[in-house]
Amino acid sequence: MIIVLKQNSTDKQIQHILDKIEEMGFRHDLSRGEKRTVIGIIGEEDKLREAPLKAIPGVDKVVPVLKPYKMASLEYQEEPSVFDLGFGVKVGGGNLMMIAGPCAIEGKDILHEIAVAVKASGANVLRGGAFKPRTSPYSFQGMGEEGLKILQEIGHELQMPVVTEVMDPRQVELIDKYTDIFQIGARNMQNFNLLKEVGSTKRPVLLKRGMSATVVDLLMSAEYIISQGNKEVILCERGIRSFDPSTRNLLDLAIVPNLRCLSHLPIIIDPSHATGRPELIPAMSLASIAAGTDGVHIEVHSNPEMAKSDGPQALLPEQFDEVMKQMKQMAEMLGKTIPTPAST
Amino acid sequence: MIIVLKQNSTDKQIQHILDKIEEMGFRHDLSRGEKRTVIGIIGEEDKLREAPLKAIPGVDKVVPVLKPYKMASLEYQEEPSVFDLGFGVKVGGGNLMMIAGPCAIEGKDILHEIAVAVKASGANVLRGGAFKPRTSPYSFQGMGEEGLKILQEIGHELQMPVVTEVMDPRQVELIDKYTDIFQIGARNMQNFNLLKEVGSTKRPVLLKRGMSATVVDLLMSAEYIISQGNKEVILCERGIRSFDPSTRNLLDLAIVPNLRCLSHLPIIIDPSHATGRPELIPAMSLASIAAGTDGVHIEVHSNPEMAKSDGPQALLPEQFDEVMKQMKQMAEMLGKTIPTPAST
Amino acid sequence: MIIVLKQNSTDKQIQHILDKIEEMGFRHDLSRGEKRTVIGIIGEEDKLREAPLKAIPGVDKVVPVLKPYKMASLEYQEEPSVFDLGFGVKVGGGNLMMIAGPCAIEGKDILHEIAVAVKASGANVLRGGAFKPRTSPYSFQGMGEEGLKILQEIGHELQMPVVTEVMDPRQVELIDKYTDIFQIGARNMQNFNLLKEVGSTKRPVLLKRGMSATVVDLLMSAEYIISQGNKEVILCERGIRSFDPSTRNLLDLAIVPNLRCLSHLPIIIDPSHATGRPELIPAMSLASIAAGTDGVHIEVHSNPEMAKSDGPQALLPEQFDEVMKQMKQMAEMLGKTIPTPAST
Amino acid sequence: MIIVLKQNSTDKQIQHILDKIEEMGFRHDLSRGEKRTVIGIIGEEDKLREAPLKAIPGVDKVVPVLKPYKMASLEYQEEPSVFDLGFGVKVGGGNLMMIAGPCAIEGKDILHEIAVAVKASGANVLRGGAFKPRTSPYSFQGMGEEGLKILQEIGHELQMPVVTEVMDPRQVELIDKYTDIFQIGARNMQNFNLLKEVGSTKRPVLLKRGMSATVVDLLMSAEYIISQGNKEVILCERGIRSFDPSTRNLLDLAIVPNLRCLSHLPIIIDPSHATGRPELIPAMSLASIAAGTDGVHIEVHSNPEMAKSDGPQALLPEQFDEVMKQMKQMAEMLGKTIPTPAST
Repeated sequence: MIIVLKQNSTDKQIQHILDKIEEMGFRHDLSRGEKRTVIGIIGEEDKLREAPLKAIPGVDKVVPVLKPYKMASLEYQEEPSVFDLGFGVKVGGGNLMMIAGPCAIEGKDILHEIAVAVKASGANVLRGGAFKPRTSPYSFQGMGEEGLKILQEIGHELQMPVVTEVMDPRQVELIDKYTDIFQIGARNMQNFNLLKEVGSTKRPVLLKRGMSATVVDLLMSAEYIISQGNKEVILCERGIRSFDPSTRNLLDLAIVPNLRCLSHLPIIIDPSHATGRPELIPAMSLASIAAGTDGVHIEVHSNPEMAKSDGPQALLPEQFDEVMKQMKQMAEMLGKTIPTPAST
Repeated sequence: MIIVLKQNSTDKQIQHILDKIEEMGFRHDLSRGEKRTVIGIIGEEDKLREAPLKAIPGVDKVVPVLKPYKMASLEYQEEPSVFDLGFGVKVGGGNLMMIAGPCAIEGKDILHEIAVAVKASGANVLRGGAFKPRTSPYSFQGMGEEGLKILQEIGHELQMPVVTEVMDPRQVELIDKYTDIFQIGARNMQNFNLLKEVGSTKRPVLLKRGMSATVVDLLMSAEYIISQGNKEVILCERGIRSFDPSTRNLLDLAIVPNLRCLSHLPIIIDPSHATGRPELIPAMSLASIAAGTDGVHIEVHSNPEMAKSDGPQALLPEQFDEVMKQMKQMAEMLGKTIPTPAST
Repeated sequence: MIIVLKQNSTDKQIQHILDKIEEMGFRHDLSRGEKRTVIGIIGEEDKLREAPLKAIPGVDKVVPVLKPYKMASLEYQEEPSVFDLGFGVKVGGGNLMMIAGPCAIEGKDILHEIAVAVKASGANVLRGGAFKPRTSPYSFQGMGEEGLKILQEIGHELQMPVVTEVMDPRQVELIDKYTDIFQIGARNMQNFNLLKEVGSTKRPVLLKRGMSATVVDLLMSAEYIISQGNKEVILCERGIRSFDPSTRNLLDLAIVPNLRCLSHLPIIIDPSHATGRPELIPAMSLASIAAGTDGVHIEVHSNPEMAKSDGPQALLPEQFDEVMKQMKQMAEMLGKTIPTPAST
Repeated sequence: MIIVLKQNSTDKQIQHILDKIEEMGFRHDLSRGEKRTVIGIIGEEDKLREAPLKAIPGVDKVVPVLKPYKMASLEYQEEPSVFDLGFGVKVGGGNLMMIAGPCAIEGKDILHEIAVAVKASGANVLRGGAFKPRTSPYSFQGMGEEGLKILQEIGHELQMPVVTEVMDPRQVELIDKYTDIFQIGARNMQNFNLLKEVGSTKRPVLLKRGMSATVVDLLMSAEYIISQGNKEVILCERGIRSFDPSTRNLLDLAIVPNLRCLSHLPIIIDPSHATGRPELIPAMSLASIAAGTDGVHIEVHSNPEMAKSDGPQALLPEQFDEVMKQMKQMAEMLGKTIPTPAST
């Protein structure tokens, strides 16, 4: 930790700061420049981070030297994490996770129809929401446990892993019975008690980036899950808030190479929520593969005009099929594998 | 609801859209311009809002005519809401709620010392966190129920209402035993199940704006609470995400007159979290009163250098006293009242 | 243009609005809903856009039906524009423009060394700044005309077109003597007099998106140039402002498919300024090609540690060579052409 | 300047960095921590800032210790600047500059009518645009020199200083003949050649903050003007870009106390452009005074429904009069002076 003092800091203030540092149990290394004084603090960075150094009079800025996340970091584990998702599907280390399905589970027949189609096109994970975090209390809130049963049944039938969102720590136990992978939505990325709860399960967690979360914030939320004992966190970029209303959110695709410099965790891209516009999804799906993502997450609906949630951003099964073909070709060119579910 | 069609939409597409609208049970009003065709849809706006009209081919944009929130709106209630907070303190309709206290409850003596000081300066609500939503799993997470007991005890002794944060739907019942007012933090503004849970209690809820929430998003979250039967929602601006690192967040003070045009709910300002810098808090507190806020929320700590959470942004009791003096003078000039707790 | 009235608008206000609309020379189409009244206005949208309709009492919102740009729009020209850049290089319609070179021209030998290297790798346009828009008045401001001469000489020798930035309307005449393509920097995207000035020349203009410009703002700035008679505008995304400090700017790659729905103009990507981090540039360059860009713009320097401007974000020639190889392979897969300069 | 090295940096890399630092003519101070190595660099910070230290392999981050602006800083001048604007009006050090007038000069009679009204209400500077930076090339671009003549004539008649925007370095000489104060618009805040040009005149410059400029960016642009010899720079906040469409821009009012910690230059607030909504302007004007601003800038038009530019955001003269009354009362309470023009 480095402390830069204010330009006009007095000897008395400097001495007070040194005293405080000692009182907190750290050592210091004073360096007086012509215009500014800088103090290096030696000690456990974690404790230092907690110390309210900035509150000491005369301090201009406090510069951390180490990163605030640990087990999510490359320093903790150099090689990329690879997780087993069930039915022979893996993610990470060159294995691409291709999630497809409707925004919400609306019924057995319609989900079955969509699932059969996306599996045929090459998707290896089926998605569908049973509990929906809707901005309006008057919107469709999901089918609940009935939806979970449908999802599980179809997953078993088609032999592919399923993922569904958990919104509430009280739902973790219930959902754990039906899903292969938990999804934490963007609005809950900093719902810390929920993170702790899924951190106590043994299922992979798909953690979506919050709309105004920095990359470090995202890793800190992953750290919450990992610190409870569950190492299987899959990060997901789904667009952040921006000033331009022409897309629903702003896809920060550079997060892929950016995270490669910071973490061993897999990172996948959700172009459906990121753009909110079906006509942009094919190009951004291809770009995600080219950027080196570990997977994509695409909403597909066979009748978007009648969907109960987010219909306008869904691809039709035939559009998804077309995009999958191009993604496969590109993945091959880049030496990546798209595991086929239940291939074992 | 108004639908604007794409410039090159065909007769067949137009007919398909009209058919769909009828199929959904709505009436339509077609108006063909020289370059664009516009369709007005007549029906219950709520159902219309749910309909995935944008997913129909040929549709360029969908323009809602009515607001998505109802009970939070001025159309529902014209006169400003006034809520009773306990111990004779009111907020709204000219009554200012002056919340002060430390970020976290750290112990009985220190909270007592701070509480006595802020009450003497004119604060009428005491704050203190027992469950803390911290970005890092390795940071101090709060004293839990022990902290709640301390908070309640001091509130009773000093005869002033207390407010504390609830982070988890499972904590609502417990916290309800100790607090006068629930606080929903910025990170949980769209934790919809938590909103529903506090919506089922009979206590006022201080709802903080999320870091990337629009004003409409904030009102929709208030609507979640109100729609469960609890009308006592106090909105709170605490700064939003911005590109300028010179303040912790960006205080959107214009939200005060902005909300006056949309809602009857009280709106208070938290300059502590909004700026993160004690030297900016006095000016922004005064500005809040001048902008017409229904209250302020200021963190105060008697020893910021030793605080366990957010020390660097706390005011000292003597600094708070100085700001309160100026705010009182300004409130008086503007004809506002700062209720004294337990004055009855 | 559609006008939505406030919920409580009176008959008198409605009549006043209708009178105003007639007074302005437009026709109207009144539609009274149960809760809201909507007025369609018929007339020349351009004149309507200029009319301060929102200032009329009782008006809640004004919804434009047509787009504000014309000659830049797909409605004006359906097929993608293709521009000739000199020395046989084209951009648009499947032709990729690969710009490379140092941030600033620093001397003849160093520019020659870099230019020879990037051309050998497959770049088809050489860049280099002679007038530099630096945030600080104390930073290196560029070599001026001497730099322009060097750039032109090397371009001629290597038979490849060159591009350089123009910052000031007074420089247009001078720079026109030396460059093949004008660059307008992000900070000048709304320097309207400069746009008019380059709009009066006969050279292609590389127009960089401003840091907080929406996609529509960018197209309006292109419209400024086109409306002066110069149709050859090449749009360039170079990252926008965001709250995450981990990259210099935030690359909005979805602008590529987004613009394909709005405009016939070519769009290229500058991953160097967008990320500011050389280790992210290869992935984002590949992603740009996959997203369907018409070209990329990459800063290359043979000695970044000694560069006079933006050294830390430059690729080394050998790094650029590696990225070019991958981009070529991907371009081929997607059926795109990278024209070789002076191939005629 | 402090350099933090990457965690895995080798001895060879460290030696290379030390060599580079010496080669650049600086001294260094190495401090090896258990996990990280930190190097302090001693030398002229300006030269250091220019050195591409981040480009050296092994460097993780570079932390500047001194501020990049000099003459705009509090370190350069501790007491607040006070500038004479003409006709006895001053700004800074407790003197408030109250600018009012229409967005654009549209004719002599209408400007005269507005000017007489705003002066009667207490405005002490008259504004009006003759050259308008409009987003669309098809919008009204201003009356040009004819407008300048009208502005000057009315300023002389009413004995009040006038301010008008300069958009182009070529206009500086012309506008200098007619105006008392130059305005640099938000879109030109980083039009560095224009800044240099007004920096060579002897008139005060009203410098508006760019839509995505940080506070430091704004001060760097002020530094451009001051470094040319013109010290009279008045900063102006007019709202920045945000994700919430409910106001035109987002007013960053905390810039007032924020700048007091950094600079001696006066800072004024423009609530008209910041909010774009007349109903929010009174509250935000009062809040600006309470926050400690050195002045406000409010657009006033006697017939907003017919204004040629930005009509919807203008106050009527009677609305302005009402706000001025409240601002005067508050200014008095805070011990500020609103100079009356031509009072000498």
